[in-house]
Amino acid sequence: MAKRSTSSSAVPRTSGGMSPEVRAEPAAGPPPGSRSHVIEAITPMVDCGRYPVKRVMGEPCVVEADIFRDGDHVLHAMIKWRSSRETQFSESPMVLVDNDRWRGEFPLERNDRYFFTIEAWTDLFASWERGFRKKAEAGRDVASDLLEGIAFIESAARRARDADRTATDAALERVRALGEPRDAVAIVSDPQLLALMARLGDRFSATEYQPLLEVVADRPLARFGAWYEMFPRSQSEVPGRAATLRQAERRLPAIHDLGFDIVYLPPIHPIGHTHRKGPNNSLTPLPDSPGSPWAIGSEAGGHTAVEPALGSLEDFDHFVSAARRLGLEIALDFAIQCSPDHPWAREHPEWFRHRPDGSIKYAENPPKEYQDIYPLDFEAPAAGALMEALKEVVLFWIGHGVRIFRVDNPHTKPVPFWRWLLADVRERYPDTIFLAEAFTRPKMMMALAKAGFTQSYTYFTWRNTKAEFVEYLTELSQPPVSDFFRPNLFTNTPDILSPILQSYGRPAFKMRLVLAATLSPSYGIYSGYELCENQAVPGTEEYLNSEKYEIRTRDWHAPGNINEFIARINAIRHENPCLRLFTNLRFLDTDSDQILCYAKATPDGSNTILVAVNLDPAGPHYCTAVVPPQVVGVAPGESYGVTDLVTGSSWTWGERNYVRLDPAIEPAHILLVTKHT
Amino acid sequence: MAKRSTSSSAVPRTSGGMSPEVRAEPAAGPPPGSRSHVIEAITPMVDCGRYPVKRVMGEPCVVEADIFRDGDHVLHAMIKWRSSRETQFSESPMVLVDNDRWRGEFPLERNDRYFFTIEAWTDLFASWERGFRKKAEAGRDVASDLLEGIAFIESAARRARDADRTATDAALERVRALGEPRDAVAIVSDPQLLALMARLGDRFSATEYQPLLEVVADRPLARFGAWYEMFPRSQSEVPGRAATLRQAERRLPAIHDLGFDIVYLPPIHPIGHTHRKGPNNSLTPLPDSPGSPWAIGSEAGGHTAVEPALGSLEDFDHFVSAARRLGLEIALDFAIQCSPDHPWAREHPEWFRHRPDGSIKYAENPPKEYQDIYPLDFEAPAAGALMEALKEVVLFWIGHGVRIFRVDNPHTKPVPFWRWLLADVRERYPDTIFLAEAFTRPKMMMALAKAGFTQSYTYFTWRNTKAEFVEYLTELSQPPVSDFFRPNLFTNTPDILSPILQSYGRPAFKMRLVLAATLSPSYGIYSGYELCENQAVPGTEEYLNSEKYEIRTRDWHAPGNINEFIARINAIRHENPCLRLFTNLRFLDTDSDQILCYAKATPDGSNTILVAVNLDPAGPHYCTAVVPPQVVGVAPGESYGVTDLVTGSSWTWGERNYVRLDPAIEPAHILLVTKHT
Repeated sequence: MAKRSTSSSAVPRTSGGMSPEVRAEPAAGPPPGSRSHVIEAITPMVDCGRYPVKRVMGEPCVVEADIFRDGDHVLHAMIKWRSSRETQFSESPMVLVDNDRWRGEFPLERNDRYFFTIEAWTDLFASWERGFRKKAEAGRDVASDLLEGIAFIESAARRARDADRTATDAALERVRALGEPRDAVAIVSDPQLLALMARLGDRFSATEYQPLLEVVADRPLARFGAWYEMFPRSQSEVPGRAATLRQAERRLPAIHDLGFDIVYLPPIHPIGHTHRKGPNNSLTPLPDSPGSPWAIGSEAGGHTAVEPALGSLEDFDHFVSAARRLGLEIALDFAIQCSPDHPWAREHPEWFRHRPDGSIKYAENPPKEYQDIYPLDFEAPAAGALMEALKEVVLFWIGHGVRIFRVDNPHTKPVPFWRWLLADVRERYPDTIFLAEAFTRPKMMMALAKAGFTQSYTYFTWRNTKAEFVEYLTELSQPPVSDFFRPNLFTNTPDILSPILQSYGRPAFKMRLVLAATLSPSYGIYSGYELCENQAVPGTEEYLNSEKYEIRTRDWHAPGNINEFIARINAIRHENPCLRLFTNLRFLDTDSDQILCYAKATPDGSNTILVAVNLDPAGPHYCTAVVPPQVVGVAPGESYGVTDLVTGSSWTWGERNYVRLDPAIEPAHILLVTKHT
Repeated sequence: MAKRSTSSSAVPRTSGGMSPEVRAEPAAGPPPGSRSHVIEAITPMVDCGRYPVKRVMGEPCVVEADIFRDGDHVLHAMIKWRSSRETQFSESPMVLVDNDRWRGEFPLERNDRYFFTIEAWTDLFASWERGFRKKAEAGRDVASDLLEGIAFIESAARRARDADRTATDAALERVRALGEPRDAVAIVSDPQLLALMARLGDRFSATEYQPLLEVVADRPLARFGAWYEMFPRSQSEVPGRAATLRQAERRLPAIHDLGFDIVYLPPIHPIGHTHRKGPNNSLTPLPDSPGSPWAIGSEAGGHTAVEPALGSLEDFDHFVSAARRLGLEIALDFAIQCSPDHPWAREHPEWFRHRPDGSIKYAENPPKEYQDIYPLDFEAPAAGALMEALKEVVLFWIGHGVRIFRVDNPHTKPVPFWRWLLADVRERYPDTIFLAEAFTRPKMMMALAKAGFTQSYTYFTWRNTKAEFVEYLTELSQPPVSDFFRPNLFTNTPDILSPILQSYGRPAFKMRLVLAATLSPSYGIYSGYELCENQAVPGTEEYLNSEKYEIRTRDWHAPGNINEFIARINAIRHENPCLRLFTNLRFLDTDSDQILCYAKATPDGSNTILVAVNLDPAGPHYCTAVVPPQVVGVAPGESYGVTDLVTGSSWTWGERNYVRLDPAIEPAHILLVTKHT
């Protein structure tokens, strides 16, 4: 028993590996004989645990690891986990899968941060039992071996209470009563006794992985949501007239009817006058030019004020309530920049860069200059107070019912600033969602996701070929990226009217909508998309007469609109759970490079969708789509039913299926798999 | 200048990422505006830096990392490195490769452990200069911008000395003398001034990656060496007579002539009598059965003694000196187990497992029992003293000139024990080499390499098909595995006579030798291989009449020997530097699944070898071998010469080459590439 008392001593446990510090100097003295388990290659884990893994509450977090030790023993492993609100760790068992790979899972019940690690140990009794059984069955003399086993049971009995004690005593009685030691196999190899002994035995040579690993459990909307971006001022029913928030509110039911979940508003703050931009970004505004909402700040206030032309803070609160009653959430734009008229320019000049002549520097992207914008200086000595002020801005709007922020150009602000702000805000309001408008280099885009952004814009608008979609979406939907980065596929934005939309109109608009809405659980459109607006400033991706610089009222039921199509797609998204997931995306082979085919299924296979999209808006294409049986959960050779959720047509499908798509009719099939009964 | 003084303040620097501890609780207060650089995805790195990277002294350590920050700045990055004997860090510059990936290298001049990290910072002057140049070239007004640049130079001038001061003053004088600010481009964009300013400027927003990463710089023999395993007692010139070390010594010149670098001896310690094994592992020894060298310990001593039949410790020292004079190193076997007659069984019963009746437990692999062996108990309360004693055994033989140990069954001892022993021994004697006989599950094999073993046995003897070789050797020769694991390909061992050798004899022996000796820089044979000995215990991989249990004297020049072939192969290894490397292994396409083709080249391309091996010892095969031009360093379509270093034949080769190999003649081509001049 000496061995057992050794292992249960209170010395701190080593990690699965040695820390660099330990390696840096020669080890002092031999290590204790226990703590011999190796625990490594843990998944999920982001950058060795430097950053948290992203998951969604209500789903289990599946954990895997390589776990083994020297020699031949029976091991056990547990996931030890707790939420940030808890102090005690709970445990969930792991089981050996194959080749020293173990798997387990723990529940993410709350919208909270979780911490987990893995503990592995040796089951001395089970290890003894395995050897005893083999020897007994081989007819060896096991008299002495049995005495060892009895000692294990006796020790366990001393710790056992009630029914456990009864069970151990009974086992001892039966074993002692035996004439032939070999016959003890029937008793000691009883699964019930083995389970009891595993419970009563101490955790011999227990080894715990260090450090703790973190998992963020977001609310479902962080992964699954349809976004609708609109300029409130353009929502008037009177052509050419600017709308107030109260008037814009009247648009909300229609957006809800289209099936959207989130209404995202560009900055609603007072707009500066100095160097205000005119139509099409001209430097010569008209008398009635409303200015760009991103030129934030005027005598009416800054980031915590509402543009007077839109109304008051009370009007905004009313807007948020009206949306909430419809089940819609409001997302605000968080743009860290000021117009020259922003109060901060007077109250906090120390937050801005200055020229040698003392004037504040306006924004530049040499040789381009943006006189209507002052960037803030995160490297100024006063940057600390600036960052606090920016956090207060976020908390201010949270105080007004906002839980979703679309962050403008986060890649031009320091990554450590975002780590700090996002961690602090989400610690107080874990339900807050931050979408990064990180149209920047790929590694910075990923770094911002690691820093804590809930979602990110992507390169989707610039991906057009089948090969591009397969490569890019596979990268995004599989680990390591899928463990920390969530794409939000916008079909268009006020800054991006992609060439394919400009050139091909309606068929292209429907095709890109299906891709965005079914490839990713989160997607969005910028208003006007439903009208297939595609007039650009020639040679650019900018909208002609962009809403950024003028009022654009619209007839939302103009001929050629795709309102019904959008509503149908959003309904399909809500009716089919498999479309709420992303890592379940699987691309299927087709023999046409113009037809993209993919499948999504729920883990239990109860809901499976097959999507086929004709990527060429100019004309019909056909192909043979190959659907491996396991993808739809049927036996090889077995057929199954599919129903097109857009048209209602039904077919019987198998492993190889003929698909023809004419964009003039419908650019895509969205097929629900219906097993034969 | 305030910004500059901020950044040069002495606050501790953050790492490229946040530590889990920091993340575990909400950040306290905003981060300083500086230290904004992200440093991640560093290579080489093993398990996030938990374990050291293995390299060889005399070669540079190439380091890469993703380095970037917010916005648009000119960055610099340095590798900061030192050896474990140094306290000051040296610096080596990194350069941007592409897509935010940076690369640099630092020298590994000593047989020592090295530590490195990366520091990145922003060059304020260069960042300013880039913007200034763009605006000036675009004809913008840059008067105010130039004042900023002048302020940078003035600040640098204040810190400059001697020639630097002269240069900065001269630049200032010229700039101030200008009439048109735009003309300053010629001065401030001068590469010499930019370099000077980079040197004089402080490291703005400097960010250092943490923790330190470790690289072990081994001596060359750790990677490149030909091993020859022999039982000294079998080296007598008198048939059937046991040889002493003094007699075995006479064999060393012949082994040296075969071109081997290391002579590995099975345990030379006193052999136990109790339950001594007889011929072919029988339990009934003959009166003259010498016993297995792995049954260590008798009344004559234990792990620090020499078997009396072999001679004395002085004889061993003499043996080591004789080898050294020939340029041979001796490798000893380190087998942690005792015969029942080992002194420790009496002196330290607390180091062994005991049965309930108090007797020491012999080794078991239920239902198998090994009464001639007592395993040691690393989980006993006294394990600490046991481990110290085992380390003393290693240090004892190091004291007798041994620097190479082949460790028997390391996977049956705790991994933490090996980490501790190997780190401590190598801290004192960095030139010590440990070869792990880890014939065990793949992940434990890798874990032992991470724990510090210099080399490891592999599954080579059980790999036979082309697909198996390509898959297995690619895994071993590329990161992550190649950063910590070094294979030693033994063609055979006293325990392994593979089926292909049993079945096909001489052609198979030559073929497997070429594979082992040219695929891996480290390889070995067990004596008898040169005689193509291939008689096995039927149905097993055990040698018939194994040397493990009896004396086997041999006629080393018996007909059918491959002495000359082995000598030639070893000479080729020594004459061609590309064969000293492993990660340069590149497999080439052939249209025959029986012919394996691969290339090795030195980094500078000055030495390139192409190897083609017929994997079928039963008959001739031919193929077209495809050699991409860049592999041999020629232009597309350019031909080159190749000379077979085995036969001396020469051919002109190109991209597609006909190869025919008849194992009855030669099983392989080893072709030296000779460019046309």
